[in-house]
Amino acid sequence: MGMTAAVIGGSGYGGGELLRLLLAHPEIEIGAVAAHTNVGEDIADLHPHLPSLYGQTFVDTAAAVASGAEVIFLALPHGRSAEVAATIPTGIKVVDLGADFRLESAEAWAKAYGGAHAGTWTYGMPELPGARAAIAAAERVAAPGCYPTAVTLAYAPLVAAGVIDPSDLVTVAASGTSGAGRAAKASLLGSEVMGDVTAYKVGRHQHRPEIVQNLTKVAATGVPGPAATVRVSFTASLAPMPRGILATCTARPTGKASTDGLGADLVAGILRAYYDDEPFVTVLPAGRWPRTSATLGSNTVHLQATYDEDADRVVVVSALDNLTKGAAGQAIQCANLMLGLPETMGLPLTGLAP
Amino acid sequence: MGMTAAVIGGSGYGGGELLRLLLAHPEIEIGAVAAHTNVGEDIADLHPHLPSLYGQTFVDTAAAVASGAEVIFLALPHGRSAEVAATIPTGIKVVDLGADFRLESAEAWAKAYGGAHAGTWTYGMPELPGARAAIAAAERVAAPGCYPTAVTLAYAPLVAAGVIDPSDLVTVAASGTSGAGRAAKASLLGSEVMGDVTAYKVGRHQHRPEIVQNLTKVAATGVPGPAATVRVSFTASLAPMPRGILATCTARPTGKASTDGLGADLVAGILRAYYDDEPFVTVLPAGRWPRTSATLGSNTVHLQATYDEDADRVVVVSALDNLTKGAAGQAIQCANLMLGLPETMGLPLTGLAP
Amino acid sequence: MGMTAAVIGGSGYGGGELLRLLLAHPEIEIGAVAAHTNVGEDIADLHPHLPSLYGQTFVDTAAAVASGAEVIFLALPHGRSAEVAATIPTGIKVVDLGADFRLESAEAWAKAYGGAHAGTWTYGMPELPGARAAIAAAERVAAPGCYPTAVTLAYAPLVAAGVIDPSDLVTVAASGTSGAGRAAKASLLGSEVMGDVTAYKVGRHQHRPEIVQNLTKVAATGVPGPAATVRVSFTASLAPMPRGILATCTARPTGKASTDGLGADLVAGILRAYYDDEPFVTVLPAGRWPRTSATLGSNTVHLQATYDEDADRVVVVSALDNLTKGAAGQAIQCANLMLGLPETMGLPLTGLAP
Amino acid sequence: MGMTAAVIGGSGYGGGELLRLLLAHPEIEIGAVAAHTNVGEDIADLHPHLPSLYGQTFVDTAAAVASGAEVIFLALPHGRSAEVAATIPTGIKVVDLGADFRLESAEAWAKAYGGAHAGTWTYGMPELPGARAAIAAAERVAAPGCYPTAVTLAYAPLVAAGVIDPSDLVTVAASGTSGAGRAAKASLLGSEVMGDVTAYKVGRHQHRPEIVQNLTKVAATGVPGPAATVRVSFTASLAPMPRGILATCTARPTGKASTDGLGADLVAGILRAYYDDEPFVTVLPAGRWPRTSATLGSNTVHLQATYDEDADRVVVVSALDNLTKGAAGQAIQCANLMLGLPETMGLPLTGLAP
Repeated sequence: MGMTAAVIGGSGYGGGELLRLLLAHPEIEIGAVAAHTNVGEDIADLHPHLPSLYGQTFVDTAAAVASGAEVIFLALPHGRSAEVAATIPTGIKVVDLGADFRLESAEAWAKAYGGAHAGTWTYGMPELPGARAAIAAAERVAAPGCYPTAVTLAYAPLVAAGVIDPSDLVTVAASGTSGAGRAAKASLLGSEVMGDVTAYKVGRHQHRPEIVQNLTKVAATGVPGPAATVRVSFTASLAPMPRGILATCTARPTGKASTDGLGADLVAGILRAYYDDEPFVTVLPAGRWPRTSATLGSNTVHLQATYDEDADRVVVVSALDNLTKGAAGQAIQCANLMLGLPETMGLPLTGLAP
Repeated sequence: MGMTAAVIGGSGYGGGELLRLLLAHPEIEIGAVAAHTNVGEDIADLHPHLPSLYGQTFVDTAAAVASGAEVIFLALPHGRSAEVAATIPTGIKVVDLGADFRLESAEAWAKAYGGAHAGTWTYGMPELPGARAAIAAAERVAAPGCYPTAVTLAYAPLVAAGVIDPSDLVTVAASGTSGAGRAAKASLLGSEVMGDVTAYKVGRHQHRPEIVQNLTKVAATGVPGPAATVRVSFTASLAPMPRGILATCTARPTGKASTDGLGADLVAGILRAYYDDEPFVTVLPAGRWPRTSATLGSNTVHLQATYDEDADRVVVVSALDNLTKGAAGQAIQCANLMLGLPETMGLPLTGLAP
Repeated sequence: MGMTAAVIGGSGYGGGELLRLLLAHPEIEIGAVAAHTNVGEDIADLHPHLPSLYGQTFVDTAAAVASGAEVIFLALPHGRSAEVAATIPTGIKVVDLGADFRLESAEAWAKAYGGAHAGTWTYGMPELPGARAAIAAAERVAAPGCYPTAVTLAYAPLVAAGVIDPSDLVTVAASGTSGAGRAAKASLLGSEVMGDVTAYKVGRHQHRPEIVQNLTKVAATGVPGPAATVRVSFTASLAPMPRGILATCTARPTGKASTDGLGADLVAGILRAYYDDEPFVTVLPAGRWPRTSATLGSNTVHLQATYDEDADRVVVVSALDNLTKGAAGQAIQCANLMLGLPETMGLPLTGLAP
Repeated sequence: MGMTAAVIGGSGYGGGELLRLLLAHPEIEIGAVAAHTNVGEDIADLHPHLPSLYGQTFVDTAAAVASGAEVIFLALPHGRSAEVAATIPTGIKVVDLGADFRLESAEAWAKAYGGAHAGTWTYGMPELPGARAAIAAAERVAAPGCYPTAVTLAYAPLVAAGVIDPSDLVTVAASGTSGAGRAAKASLLGSEVMGDVTAYKVGRHQHRPEIVQNLTKVAATGVPGPAATVRVSFTASLAPMPRGILATCTARPTGKASTDGLGADLVAGILRAYYDDEPFVTVLPAGRWPRTSATLGSNTVHLQATYDEDADRVVVVSALDNLTKGAAGQAIQCANLMLGLPETMGLPLTGLAP
């Protein structure tokens, strides 16, 4: 009884978070863990917060593929998942935390990431229309990016309701430094990032096409007629904390919304109704705004919204943990669906604070 | 030789920064320092980074007013400057770091701050059109707010050039915690703010009308014809660092700009030309984006801009130290002008990093 | 089936951590939660990381006492536990996270905390000799302080083995800011603590007598003959992080140890043997030193030790989470024993990193 | 008029701090700046807090040596200074911020750093007995290490007064991450260091022999008779902040001291008398303890001391900025002396806070 998961790319932050969550999972146990340049090293040497893994060592990728796992998680840098995925036999469920299989458009892929487009897998955001069933039926799932999760879930209910204009979205999001990965770079040293907020990849962040793809689909479900054009100004910044994303998502109300009157209560109400049954989305009570610290280590997204009359803009703020709901937690949420387990199994609703 | 400054409200962060900067000022020496609830206490007990002030104690406000200073700085909470200012005799220069005298519209004041409007003083942002001469001629100057400085300086050149639509501005800014003051509040404890980014006063931040006032004036200088409507969606967030503001300022290009073609180089070029002679504004070389840490303790604003074709939005990012260029440094910059001293005297161009 | 716990003092950091852990406990559910000044407020308003508690409000202390809970946790400021404890009827298990009942000596209490000594309860550190059984049999248990847990567990094996001189211990420990509580104090503002390490209560920290009491008992178990004098120089410092204690614990080897030769391997080996069966103490592999981040949110203490020949000192370093193993986690560990549950139930062995 | 300084090793944190301080120096201007792997790059690209250096590029080491500077600062990794120093002609003053020339004993060097001992230069800590004149007369000076500065200045007055036993010193010090340098290492990523305190090089830190050398000399000046044996247990830890060292320095009082009675006032009084004329050492008023944030960017050491009767230990706490008084500031202090300038010229007494 119980299933086994292999993790390929287990030495980075996404891999470490998978291991942390799987250690607490009642039905999935950790099998082989691969890490390219760390084969033979003790897993807990790289993840000292997981002392129960002292004694287990990293294996190579081929060994992990052949380890007999029911599900394999890929937590690899962009462009590496495709070649590994090609070696995994049919019959094994695969969830990729990387970007390789998220985009449907080869052109969008090339523009965002460069190189050849590997293909498209079922997109692993269960909260989107129709996604839950698709994920449950899929053998291979591409788990969403961290920013796209925060931004898509903020806008989706309002796009679906037709109350905001999807062609005029402006988002600014701040991320903790783990989002930039574990590779040694001088620009990411603690001495550099502490006391610092900085913008990066302004006007050209690779996560934008994923947001556009998601909201285009949501718009198609919500509004009859020709496909809406989704256009989003997306600026990412790095904040001096290890984890967390706070996305400030603004939008122009549609004429329809303006005519009807669109107060803060109505906007938040649309979010509340949309996510009423979602276990991992919390629309906060009126007057409470999301803070990243409240989501630390949890698989939960916190949302709040208002309508700013002076600027005639809707503002939705979302917070999540980029490594949990933004990566490893969401990947396990998908794996639960794919394996026929309860969707919430093993995933914390509770954050760690202070 | 040399002049003397009194500081009223010397126990807070703005007051402490005034003292830090004045200690290094070649022509202005520190005279009386008042702090309401700390009269008789050692100044350096509250500001241990200023050990040369051990031995000097806080006096009361009346004593500071009567101390014979050539210039008095007010670093008081909102609503307190007006009553103190009323007791200062004509002939003494006064620079208020608070909001009381910044706004021209009593209605805007009431909406943003509540209570009676105390009046309007010369607005102390020397980089705005015509402001430098007006400040030099003024006896009383209202130093700008921290966010308005970051945001106004980001948009001003583009508004003046008529290449962005001032009625469709969307800004998201992150501030260090010193911007929230030194009063003891549980929500600002280190345990709460470390590891956390959170949005606050969404859609209703009191600094917005000041931004609108500034850009309305800039628009009037740049474009002939009827007054432009300035509308800005402004969202502030708190970042886990003591100092610094990073403002991400987006705007829709005007039809004129779109027709002409508006590349990143052109946008940055407009900023560069506008601030060519400004000692405290640095438009970074192409490809370098502002980071708050590079402005720590300096009176310098760092700017960079681009045009995002996919979103059809201009993005300007500005960074400054909220206590220096955003408060005390800018106040001393104004005082230098008012006292006939070189504008840059005693003000650091250099930040402290890492 | 299942038991119910009441928490009195649920609004602070210790109380919040109890609630976080109890939410994940398989056999204990959260009953009444009291908070003196927050009666009627939503629990999750003060603990937004616990969104599943939205809807439950704080009650007053009397209501919590009368709520029918099998176990009551007291997470109150020093000096407040005693009066509340007096109102709890016999038959209800009580675990106090405060200091009121930790010390056996009324004189030591008066010197450390001032005021009348309330009494002495069974001391809740299961890893000490004989403690586990005593806790299991007790109705009222005093959970240890955060620093005493880190320091006692570091020295205990070496004191018991007679290889260090308990009269010449020198310890310096750094704590995250949550150890200083959630009351609003200007000295604990984020602006003050970020970028700062500072020593406090030097030479007079109230946790020292608790360390002395613990090690005196350990010494008595290890060495036949007259009672050893335990003397410890203890200096605490505040580090810019929300959680975590790192204690550097040095000691002079006894003559016996020097004669025998006392290498690093031997010292670490003594620790390893002593804690071999302890679920919540991890002696790290050779060459790995404890870091507080690896213990974040876990109930685990990490230890490493060496012998420094040049200084002729043994150095033991211990790390733990001051709110978990240093407070709420250890309290639940005791409650598990008192209630006949498995000692480790509901308590994470795994930390949250990065 | 004015002198010119060359900086070799200008791309790291020590080099950057030299440039920051020299930009404000009234009599020394920045000449050639060398950085091995960054030749031709813009200095301000690596040091964006120094925007006035945009336009000046790094040169190679030979060019810097030949640049005609009156003084050359070496800010190179251990073991690199010696080879560069060998190429600098007599007549040019040289201050080395590295360790190469600090130790007098080749054996101690080999044990601490490995490799061949390059020699010994005049040791650049002006506050030590006789050092000021020696530095002023020297052509080549080895600036002290960051930890040795904090620890030596804490103990020196008490060792000189004969009131503590130099053979039984126990020190634990926490440093900000800039002390670990700017080279890209995964263990120093912001994601790793934020929220973390960890001990490193326990029992074998390379700075210990420098502390021993300093205090041995101080002991020789204070006490007639045979040379004292200095023995110090030194444990360093890394704290989550960019800058700052807090050293907790404990010592056993001598029999003489115990007999005389050694209260807190007396201990602090010894420090106060010893440093009465020192511009860069501040013994804080009674009851105030050093905090690193108060020294940020200043060349000042803050000290406080007490006698802990229960432990029979003296405790001295010192705080400084590891890059300023602990490195570049102290190096410029030495250069001022060597060049016949006022010792304090261009060096801030004031820190930056909050």
